Amino acid sequence: MIPVPHGFDVTLLLWLNLAGTFTFGLSGGLAAVRARLDLFGVLVLAAVVGLAGGITRDLLIGVPPSTFRDWHYLAAVGAAGLVSFFGRPALERRWRLVQLFDAMGLALVCVTGASRALAFGLGPAQAIILGAISSIGGGILRDVLLRQVPTVLRQDLYAVPAVLGAAVVTIAHEAGATHGAFAVLGAGLCFGTRLLGIHRGLSMPLAPSERRDEPPAD
Amino acid sequence: MIPVPHGFDVTLLLWLNLAGTFTFGLSGGLAAVRARLDLFGVLVLAAVVGLAGGITRDLLIGVPPSTFRDWHYLAAVGAAGLVSFFGRPALERRWRLVQLFDAMGLALVCVTGASRALAFGLGPAQAIILGAISSIGGGILRDVLLRQVPTVLRQDLYAVPAVLGAAVVTIAHEAGATHGAFAVLGAGLCFGTRLLGIHRGLSMPLAPSERRDEPPAD
Amino acid sequence: MIPVPHGFDVTLLLWLNLAGTFTFGLSGGLAAVRARLDLFGVLVLAAVVGLAGGITRDLLIGVPPSTFRDWHYLAAVGAAGLVSFFGRPALERRWRLVQLFDAMGLALVCVTGASRALAFGLGPAQAIILGAISSIGGGILRDVLLRQVPTVLRQDLYAVPAVLGAAVVTIAHEAGATHGAFAVLGAGLCFGTRLLGIHRGLSMPLAPSERRDEPPAD
Repeated sequence: MIPVPHGFDVTLLLWLNLAGTFTFGLSGGLAAVRARLDLFGVLVLAAVVGLAGGITRDLLIGVPPSTFRDWHYLAAVGAAGLVSFFGRPALERRWRLVQLFDAMGLALVCVTGASRALAFGLGPAQAIILGAISSIGGGILRDVLLRQVPTVLRQDLYAVPAVLGAAVVTIAHEAGATHGAFAVLGAGLCFGTRLLGIHRGLSMPLAPSERRDEPPAD
Repeated sequence: MIPVPHGFDVTLLLWLNLAGTFTFGLSGGLAAVRARLDLFGVLVLAAVVGLAGGITRDLLIGVPPSTFRDWHYLAAVGAAGLVSFFGRPALERRWRLVQLFDAMGLALVCVTGASRALAFGLGPAQAIILGAISSIGGGILRDVLLRQVPTVLRQDLYAVPAVLGAAVVTIAHEAGATHGAFAVLGAGLCFGTRLLGIHRGLSMPLAPSERRDEPPAD
Repeated sequence: MIPVPHGFDVTLLLWLNLAGTFTFGLSGGLAAVRARLDLFGVLVLAAVVGLAGGITRDLLIGVPPSTFRDWHYLAAVGAAGLVSFFGRPALERRWRLVQLFDAMGLALVCVTGASRALAFGLGPAQAIILGAISSIGGGILRDVLLRQVPTVLRQDLYAVPAVLGAAVVTIAHEAGATHGAFAVLGAGLCFGTRLLGIHRGLSMPLAPSERRDEPPAD
């Protein structure tokens, strides 16, 4: 259901998308295990983080949510929930690997989210916003369900990479270039910025009026 | 708007659905009264718990939310809000009765939710999930609005009965059997499991890694 | 996309709507600055309060969210986010002015929300509820994201003015009167009631059972 750019293999793209959904699901499932939710709660949180971003995107476009109708995605988040439920210690020992996969998921989802918005005829600003919402919507809902102010709104460089990746495909599309290379470029920029953000501990700035009690944030 | 299985009386089904919506509304209204919300907040919480599950279901199916358009359902949640607002002490003295009606609401809504998904051509996994979402979506939103981690994700056997009830009608439908008897069977299984869960204090298990500090949960 | 009553200037109405969206955005942006969210969080909260009410209204009607597709509204909430981010001290010195504009936004949005529901053929109860949801939905989501029980459900006279304003246009519409004068009357009633509520510190009553520890609330 996700539009396929020229020069792309459909099956490869589906597998990449499922891998991204799975790693998003892990982030939800692990957060649920840490918050001591029960098995049902772990499965719900995995589904929320894996699917809610794409569902919100589709509702804002005004079409029935596509990933919900495709059992592959439901299977991916179900598996992520079970892996989280039984594998927390093993996953936390491999935390850098999980973060690496999550950055891959972020990169894929922001690019496919923006492409889908463009395919439905939405404007460039909307496409970039929907690319970002696809990537971060699930994590925001995860934090709300676990009664936390969403991390992505407070710290960390998580949304900016998604905006950058979505912007590359959107600008290319507006310039008439729909070749898959721009999708790869957008995903690569998102992935690289995200890893740089983790490595350097980068964050977005606080408002000037809130910076009094601490060294400037930027 | 809810599909009617063979051998069912439409008026009876509407009344049962309204009774379920009303008891869901009571759960929202009472939680709001306890949290010291004002009259408006009590009405909103009654509406949220009574209607949000079905609205979410319809948005995920991709159709305009049907219960919102039907004034019977709005009247049911409005009445539930007013009864909660003025009748908290009386309701709490009859708490077992309220729980009994709530279990009936759960049983009805999981069955009609799954049937509606099947009527719109969604697959079996989606139908079972939508049956569960119809039943528990409102309660999750109630807890989020009152700033609690949703009960249904942490403890209690509330979602499992809904999944079981939805599974019965879905499996029967997939096997070609749409007779109303399977709807009754699904609702009965849900109702029975829910009452058993309350009576025995059953819960879903915690993740293995989280069970260290306490006797095993299952 | 918003229906225009007879005797109204389209451009004027768009500007009034954008002004309302902008002041709603300020309320979200300022709350985010106070909660020490970063620049991205401030922009998201401004967008949430400015747009979520209208988006929820359109999803409940069953049409693609219109304000999201119109870049004017995205620009209005983006500007509100930036003004909040850089201008908290200046805005708080002019707090009465901000509240005045917010009351204007409330008055406009409840009237246009109800009109839109009526234009899509929904009944009077639905139109009044959707007028209120358009006005208060964003604020509820703002409080949930910042981990507070929504103010509008607990205290203050914020929803009642919106309900009154929506009721005026709805009753006029049901009586066959679609002249713009009723929209002005509804907006004026909402605006006046809201200012009176702020001035007198009015609130909706608590449930009778919760009033024991304090002087009666009404």
